[in-house]
Order: sequence, then C-alpha cells, then structure tokens
Amino acid sequence: MSPAATLDATLARIDETLPESLDRLMDLLRIPSISTDPAYKPDCARAADWLVADLQSLGFDARAAATPGHPMVVAHCGEKTEGQRHILFYGHYDVQPVDPLTLWDRDPFDPEIQDTPKGKVIRARGASDDKGQLMTFLEACRAWKHVHGTLPGHLTIFLEGEEESGSPSLVPFLQENHDELACDLALICDTGLFESATPAITTMLRGLCKAEFTIHAASRDLHSGMYGGLARNPLHVMSKLLSALHDDQGRVQVPGFYDDVADLPDTLRAQWQSLAFDHARYLGDVGLSVPSGEADRTPLEMIWSRPTAEVNGMWGGYTGAGFKTVLPAEAHAKVSFRLVSDQNPTKILTAFRAWAEAQMPADCRIEWLDGIEGAGASVMSIEDPAFEAARTALTEEWARPAAFVGAGGSIPVAGYFKSILGMDAMLIGFGRDDDQVHSPNEKYDLERFHKGIRSWARILDRIA
Amino acid sequence: MSPAATLDATLARIDETLPESLDRLMDLLRIPSISTDPAYKPDCARAADWLVADLQSLGFDARAAATPGHPMVVAHCGEKTEGQRHILFYGHYDVQPVDPLTLWDRDPFDPEIQDTPKGKVIRARGASDDKGQLMTFLEACRAWKHVHGTLPGHLTIFLEGEEESGSPSLVPFLQENHDELACDLALICDTGLFESATPAITTMLRGLCKAEFTIHAASRDLHSGMYGGLARNPLHVMSKLLSALHDDQGRVQVPGFYDDVADLPDTLRAQWQSLAFDHARYLGDVGLSVPSGEADRTPLEMIWSRPTAEVNGMWGGYTGAGFKTVLPAEAHAKVSFRLVSDQNPTKILTAFRAWAEAQMPADCRIEWLDGIEGAGASVMSIEDPAFEAARTALTEEWARPAAFVGAGGSIPVAGYFKSILGMDAMLIGFGRDDDQVHSPNEKYDLERFHKGIRSWARILDRIA
Repeated sequence: MSPAATLDATLARIDETLPESLDRLMDLLRIPSISTDPAYKPDCARAADWLVADLQSLGFDARAAATPGHPMVVAHCGEKTEGQRHILFYGHYDVQPVDPLTLWDRDPFDPEIQDTPKGKVIRARGASDDKGQLMTFLEACRAWKHVHGTLPGHLTIFLEGEEESGSPSLVPFLQENHDELACDLALICDTGLFESATPAITTMLRGLCKAEFTIHAASRDLHSGMYGGLARNPLHVMSKLLSALHDDQGRVQVPGFYDDVADLPDTLRAQWQSLAFDHARYLGDVGLSVPSGEADRTPLEMIWSRPTAEVNGMWGGYTGAGFKTVLPAEAHAKVSFRLVSDQNPTKILTAFRAWAEAQMPADCRIEWLDGIEGAGASVMSIEDPAFEAARTALTEEWARPAAFVGAGGSIPVAGYFKSILGMDAMLIGFGRDDDQVHSPNEKYDLERFHKGIRSWARILDRIA
Repeated sequence: MSPAATLDATLARIDETLPESLDRLMDLLRIPSISTDPAYKPDCARAADWLVADLQSLGFDARAAATPGHPMVVAHCGEKTEGQRHILFYGHYDVQPVDPLTLWDRDPFDPEIQDTPKGKVIRARGASDDKGQLMTFLEACRAWKHVHGTLPGHLTIFLEGEEESGSPSLVPFLQENHDELACDLALICDTGLFESATPAITTMLRGLCKAEFTIHAASRDLHSGMYGGLARNPLHVMSKLLSALHDDQGRVQVPGFYDDVADLPDTLRAQWQSLAFDHARYLGDVGLSVPSGEADRTPLEMIWSRPTAEVNGMWGGYTGAGFKTVLPAEAHAKVSFRLVSDQNPTKILTAFRAWAEAQMPADCRIEWLDGIEGAGASVMSIEDPAFEAARTALTEEWARPAAFVGAGGSIPVAGYFKSILGMDAMLIGFGRDDDQVHSPNEKYDLERFHKGIRSWARILDRIA
C-alpha cells in the first residue's frame, strides 16, 4: 500500500474496532490504582501488569520495573536505524483518590458509557487522567500493527505509576536507566485541548523558584503607645519591599530579571494571536475582568511566555480576632518566580536576595528561611520538524488549525526528560476543562478518545 | 504657724511617721485583691473596706459603693468654697494576677522591706501598681491633718477596684455619679518618673483609633501557574496600599490627617529639649538604634505629641510551613492611628477609608470588618496655674526640675474624666521602669514611697 493508503487503512481500523478499544479501556479503569494510598498498592501492581501484558500482546518487549514505590512500565520496539527518530511515549496509569465517594453518581471503578447533552462520555476515575489518554496511544499502535504488520519505528513506552503522588521514584529511575530511556523526542499525553477545542502542542513550560524570608527589626514585640512613631515597624518595611517588586507597568524591578528572557518568536506570536484567547471568560470564571500583568503584553504572553514575581504569602503582627496595638519584631513573606527562556533559578534568587537586602533600612535585617531551589523553564526546540509534522497531523484530524501553546505552570516530567535524559517533549492531549479530573464524576468524552487514537495514528505516520 | 512653717511641720511629721506609714501599706499589700479572678472577689471587697475604714479614721466621709463588679471607694472632705478648687484624687486598689508563682522569690502577698544594691525596696504584688502609689497620697493627707487639724481643702478620693481588669464598671459609675464626682481637677497617681529620675506631670496622652479590613480580588484562590502574571494578586495590592501610608519623610499620606494637629507650644518644646531624652538607650533596650519616624521631629515628639499610622497586623495567602504557589483571593490588615491634639477618630477613620478605597485597582474591593471606634487625645490645659504650682512643688522635693511630659499610649481614666466629668487631670507618679509591675517580684523603692508622700504634701500646700 502507499503511505496514504496505509494511513487511511489504519484510521479505518481504528473506527471499526472502537468498541474493542473501549472494552480494553474499561478493563483498565476497573483497576483502582490509587497510588497515594498504600491500601491500593496491589492494584497499582495489577494495573502495571495489565499494561505489560497488553504491550507484550502487541509485540513490545515489555516489563514492570520495580521501584521503592509503584512499578514503572517500560516497553520497547524497533531498533536504532540511521535517520529514524527514537521516540519515547509517556503516560501514567495511577489515579487520584476518589473521596468524597458520596459526591459520585456511581462507583468510580465501575466505568460506564453515558449519554449526556454534550455527547457520549466514559465515566470513571482515570477516564481522562490519565488512563483514557494513555490508551489513545496504545490503541493507535494496535491499529498500526494490524495494518503495517509491525509496530511504528523505534519506540519506547514509559508508563509511570506515581504521577498522582509526587513521583518519588521518577528522578532516580530516570538516572539509573538513562541509557535505556534517553531517546530523541518524548511524547507526553497528559494535557488538554486549548480552550477545550483547539488541538495543541505545548512547547513552553514556565519554570519556578521560591524564596521565603523574615524581616527582623526590634528584639521583641513593642507597644505602639510606647514606641509607635519612633521605632521601626517591620510590617511597613515588608510592605515597602513587596510593593517595590513591580513598577506601575507591572515589570519586575529586580536588577537583571529580564536579562535571559527571549523575545517571543514572530511565528508563535502570530499563532497565539490567531487563537483569539477569550481572556474575559478565563478571568470572568474566577470573578475578575482585567488583565493585571505587564502593560504591553497580551494575556497569553502573561501566562505562557513572560516571567513573574508573585507574593504567595505574607504575615506578621497580630492576626487573630480583635486588636492588639503591637509593633511586631518581625514580618514574613513567601515569594515565587515563574521563569521563562534561559532564566536561571539560582541567578534569579541571588539577584532577588541582593535587591531585597539593599533596601533594608537601619535596624532591619533579612533572614532567608529556605535554601535556593527551583527549576528553569522548559522550552522545546520547535525547529525540530517533528513539531510541525505533529501540528499538521493534528490539524488534519480536528479540522481546525492546531497550535503551539505554552503552559503557565511546570509539568515536572517534561523538565526531567530534558535535564536527565536530554530530550525535548511534545505534550499533546485531548482532555477538556470540564473532565473533572481529580474530582468526583471524572469523565472523558468518547469522541475525544476516538479522535485521540486517530490523532496519534496520524502523528506516528508523519514522524515514526 | 505660717504657711512655710506648716509645710515644714507636715514634712517633718511624714519623716517621723514613715515606719507607721509603711506598716499601713504592708497591711493593704497583704490583701490579695486580684480583680480579674472571681476567686478573689471577697479580697477586693476587703481591700475596699480597709481603705474606707482608713479614710474614715482620717475624717473623710467615705463609703464602698457597690458596682456590678468590684466596689468603688468614694470619700469626701471639705466643702465648696469661693476661689478654692475641688480636687479629685484617683488610684486603684486592685492588682494584677501573680502567676507564674514559681518566678517569685517569696509570697507576693507577704510584703517585706528588702535591702538591694540600689537601696531599700518594698517587695510585693501591688507595691508599686498601685497600692504603694495611692498610699502616698493618703499618708500626705494624714500628716496634713495632724499638723493642720483639718484635711486639705475640698477633696474627693476615688479609688477603683477594676483597673487591672478593663474597668468594666468605670464609665457607668462616672455617668451615674456625675454630680458627686465632677471636680475642678483630677490628680492621678499611677505613672512613673521620667526616665526613672525626673519628676514629671503627664499633660498629653495620645488617643487611638483602629481599622481592620480585607482586600478582595478573585472569587477563589488561584494557581500561580494558571493565573500568575495575568490575575490581580491582592497581596500586591495590600503591600502597595500599606507602603503608601507614609512618604519617605515618615509623614502619613491620608488627606487631612494633620489638619487638627496643633504645633507643640514653645514652652513645652524647650522643656522637652532640656530633658535630654536618651533615645539611644530607649531604642537600644529593644535592639534598635535609629528613630524611624517623621524626619523633622525629635524622638520625644514622635512618641508624645505626633500622630501615627501603624500596621499592627497583615496576612494573606499561604502562611504555613513549606510553599504553595497560590494567588489568594484576599488579603487582610489591621491598622491603628495614635491621635493627638484635636484629631477626631471618626474623621480620621473616614478619611483613611476614602483614601484606601480610592487606591483600589480594577477587580479589587475593600471590606471593612469593624465599626468605627476610637478615642481622641487628652491634652491638659496647663495654663491652669495648678500645673505650674505642682511642677514647682515637685522640683523642690526632688531637687531637679520637674517636667511636663507626654505619654504615647492612652490612660483611659484620664480620657473619661475629661469626656464624662469635664475635668482635666494631672498625672503624677513615682514609679521606676524597673518596678516590675505586672511581673514577678514587683517592688517599690522605699525612698520613692517616702518622697512621694512628701511630694503630695508640697503639692497640696500649693493648690489645695
């Protein structure tokens, strides 16, 4: 068959066998693989074993690798071939706890296809996050195998069982199995469509670093009758410091803060503009109306491609009921920075500390409570033609232009793939904002599951 | 006898009978009149009765007036006479609790005269605050009576039993007994010498008003990955608001804040300068070194005669251990103002509210949690020649110039005497900073007790 003919045949096979694909997903959803609760440890192992068996049935060389926590499922197919990418696919088979059970309309581990006003949905814990999503990839491989007789190219499947409980085994496992897992590119299926509708590949993830500190003034709390107007009040000093963090255009005032921030490439800027992000609705959902970030940036830039400084907590003095006319001895704050481009967490925190200390008036000193910690941004090299290929594939399946998007928060596994295994990741997923992940009555749209499988078939057809 | 001779005779009598004066004070100190603890209610009544009996023995028309709490001791002598001042003397016979008892070197209600490196002291709960101080006045009256055959002029003694427990019965009692208690001038003996050494009359007490408020932004806490850089952070808004409360010269920026603040009279300014206040030691005692108030004011002005705005508490976001990258929905603060001259609490709070609300950016609103409350400053009319007379009397006794001083905090009874009874107060006392009032091992210097009695004799000689 011609390449076009094999893709058509693969898509047709996916359509024809959707009932069987759903049956397999239902089987996996019946296993209560709640990773955070030790009572479900055998179920996590059972889910891993189920996946290993399924991957083996497809012809993968698959195993459940033991860790101090839950097993990692690792599977390989194909061999290193000149000019062919070695691709790693990541998903996770563990799920969130289900409490409060009373808010569920049915047993969270007794999945069901339900008709709803918005179409058919698969209702169960993990239907969307992440069993339904990871199975879109496995089902695409299955159809591919049926049509091609072989699995797609040189492929490694890596399924984690601790994503919902902080991934304690992930970093050591990646380090210890570096040579086996380091590939040319990772595919991660654990995200959603942009505004629930536009197919999207996340190519920028902001980094994060944090500082917690105390401003000390007097050696003890003072009475404002005895000392008010004369003695330094650290709450005033803290207010002044934090208010100086941004200028009136919303720009962070720490010297050098923007030194390593790259301009948004024109192609991405144009794409983001074409997304026509409905920031009024996004803000309106949480009771706000006006973007309050940097004056000359669009709302999408503010949350995807611009660094931030945010006060996450501040406290000091008397905070209980009633009143105490105290000048406290100290004031406290927690400040975090979302990082982009090449901003280095250590450099940013060092600059912040120096900037803050330079502003301390007489009799005040800052005590830094935490060590310097943080992670830089993940910015994928979209010059790699795989990104454009995947975008074209998604555009063909969803009949609307797919987009390269950013993510305001970090997805740790993408950072670890980059820092430990040296590979970029394409984050592609088919979830909707209303999937109720981590909440009662989680669901995955049946159409998303179906088109998700077809999407991977198209992507593999172009990049495998 | 000539006036000078009777004063000399009165002072001599005081010196001769000091042992008996001490015996009486010891008797009063043995009564554990802890007003805040209901278990000591009979002891409070016993202390009141002891004082009534003592006053009656001096020739006063005295009674213990029942209240919903502890009794008020009220005693009168003399009659309204043309050209003669009707004077009220105020003290309180209740004492603070004594816990932790383990920190006391002896039974707090078994008083003892002790030799210390700094001289003889009377050691007991209440020795300084306020039984020792109030007895200085009664002993002066006793010596006066012995020499003159009559009590001094037209005099009312008013001794409270709830000062250490918030004076719940005071305002109603003053209102209900207005005609009996309204005099021309009050003497209050519950303060100390300036810097423990210089005899002082407190003529200015700052007032106080308070505001507590919440700044609301989003309808719920937001994740800084999803919203950071786009959504309004109320902690930033609060910091900006509070930092704008003062300019870089320490002046409060609320419009009209200084409208009703009078300049310090030149005579007081000169007196305060001559006090050579050791602000380096005052600040050094609490680990500070630099006055941080209004740039063009002396340290004494800052705490006695200038109004203030102080943040007493602020909080918002995540304040527990660890970190949470949250943009909170709200931020909170408690702010108080010390008032001077004719500053009106309602006017100040109204101006503060309007100023704060005018600074709210889009999507933020302020919720005010408390009603408007507060009390203005007490500023005595030192043009009344009684003030200069008392200052001269004190200067003669202590052999160093007595001063008119201010107090940064409020002494509520002085405010009530003014607002309810319409009379100014002269606050004169002989305590030292190291008397350990409200603490274990409270003491009163024997010399202070002795010279305190002599001081009142000299003052009464000039003004009664």
